[in-house]
Amino acid sequence: MIAVLAGGVGAARFLRGVVRLPKASDVTVIVNTGDDTVMHGLHISPDIDTVTYTLAEAIDPQRGWGLADESWNAMANLGRYASVIPDGSSAGQTWFNLGDRDLATHLYRTARLAEGATLADVTDEIARAWDLPVRIIPMTNDRVRTMVTRADGATPREIPFQEYFVKLRHDVPVESIRFDGADAAMPLGLDALEPADAILIAPSNPLVSIAPLRSLAGVDDLLRRRRDHVVAVSPIVAGSALKGPADRLMRELGHEPSVVGVARLYAPIASALVIDEQDAALATAVESEGIRCIVTNTIMSTPEITTALARTCIEAVS
Amino acid sequence: MIAVLAGGVGAARFLRGVVRLPKASDVTVIVNTGDDTVMHGLHISPDIDTVTYTLAEAIDPQRGWGLADESWNAMANLGRYASVIPDGSSAGQTWFNLGDRDLATHLYRTARLAEGATLADVTDEIARAWDLPVRIIPMTNDRVRTMVTRADGATPREIPFQEYFVKLRHDVPVESIRFDGADAAMPLGLDALEPADAILIAPSNPLVSIAPLRSLAGVDDLLRRRRDHVVAVSPIVAGSALKGPADRLMRELGHEPSVVGVARLYAPIASALVIDEQDAALATAVESEGIRCIVTNTIMSTPEITTALARTCIEAVS
Repeated sequence: MIAVLAGGVGAARFLRGVVRLPKASDVTVIVNTGDDTVMHGLHISPDIDTVTYTLAEAIDPQRGWGLADESWNAMANLGRYASVIPDGSSAGQTWFNLGDRDLATHLYRTARLAEGATLADVTDEIARAWDLPVRIIPMTNDRVRTMVTRADGATPREIPFQEYFVKLRHDVPVESIRFDGADAAMPLGLDALEPADAILIAPSNPLVSIAPLRSLAGVDDLLRRRRDHVVAVSPIVAGSALKGPADRLMRELGHEPSVVGVARLYAPIASALVIDEQDAALATAVESEGIRCIVTNTIMSTPEITTALARTCIEAVS
Repeated sequence: MIAVLAGGVGAARFLRGVVRLPKASDVTVIVNTGDDTVMHGLHISPDIDTVTYTLAEAIDPQRGWGLADESWNAMANLGRYASVIPDGSSAGQTWFNLGDRDLATHLYRTARLAEGATLADVTDEIARAWDLPVRIIPMTNDRVRTMVTRADGATPREIPFQEYFVKLRHDVPVESIRFDGADAAMPLGLDALEPADAILIAPSNPLVSIAPLRSLAGVDDLLRRRRDHVVAVSPIVAGSALKGPADRLMRELGHEPSVVGVARLYAPIASALVIDEQDAALATAVESEGIRCIVTNTIMSTPEITTALARTCIEAVS
């Protein structure tokens, strides 16, 4: 039994390697929902969709999100309403691009939630519709929203994550991050983490993809207790994030933007950190943070490398 | 000043003639919303959209509803979820077909309603986005739903209008119709009906498109009082509806499916009924119902015929 803590694109690519392993017959993926948002009345779960579409081999390989062979006619026509949107309204906005085929997923999810289904129910239904070989569960059925406080004096100072990530292209300085609703949210997946032979922390952003999961009641405690079975993959390689703002956010929020900074964040909950060969010189510094360091190729450029990375992770802790 | 009471396709075609008249500089269209529905969490106003898209010359001319040059990728992909829809769920249904471009309108409307805008606000914004030369207002901002009771013993006996009209292709016998919520709904457009030089009842279904408007508090009384300025166009020609189930519904609900039956329904509120030349022989029977009968070509097959029909109506009562 394998459990994976996952964000979006990096986690999804890593999972492709996990599911190719012969021993990976029982994989549970617990996915961040702090990035979830409601746009145009539709409930959108970006990380769940990225993981689902990727494992279904339906993801657009260039963008890394959304579906391949996508059309954009709904969004193009939504632009017609731009001229009539009243001041202060957030309707009709097109900065969060939704493809036509992708919309079907949000329509289905929204309708199911409206009739009382839980996000876990719908996530499972969607995963089954795509014939996924793993169990995908949202980190919680409750509303948790990652909120970002800007450091550049713009108002409003605090904005929802997607506004920071997509609308502002994560190109503004950040002062702090909090997970609104996390205090009251009931975590899901503890029953998968508890008996797991290996708990893998995917190469996702530690501060905005993995931190929301860790912020839920009992999760960090459970990981600390099962630390011997927990291994993380560094999303930082040679001081940079392969994708997204992890390096910049780490710097801005007082963490060293390196595998050593990642080691410090994960040492309390993971017994091993997998870093890329480019960072081999930092292995000793990583281990001095109290976490075992495994050096391998973490750049998931081929299926073989990705599968080998997943195997290395699992063998490190099980 | 001209006011028009409108349903969907027939009314929309008629309105194209009205707006081409030189004197039609101040036209208000009050549109049935009893057909409105929520699908996949989206608020859909079929009659308003048909009128809007038609006047914008953006309607699909073959179907008579939805946008021209449409794609259907969202609905096609929604079909993927058919296999996982739980029993009793109404999510993921594809019988109400929504084009990708058309979805933009529903996304915009849904988002605006969610932030507290009225249906009248949104309808006006959408009309402005399409540069319409008329004022379009929903018959009410409140929730009114046309409910159809089946006469064939199937359960549930009472179903929402779109389920009857689209899903069952209006091919089941009907026992009765009611307008849920009409008692409590506040009508809109009385301020346009009161001073209008001419009030035109479009060639729409009297029982499911015009009746919902008439069911709202004060509307029928106002029309009775202003009867001299009210003219209706019969949607029944030679005993048949040009489109939709008007003839069948009239028969099933105890009305003669002919211009005479239409005359009986409208005589209390309209001083003139415009019927097609094919029904010329029934003009005397119409007038014996206490309503003036005007015979002309009502088959709106060309712009010229449509414009002439609109002119005939206005001249009849103003």
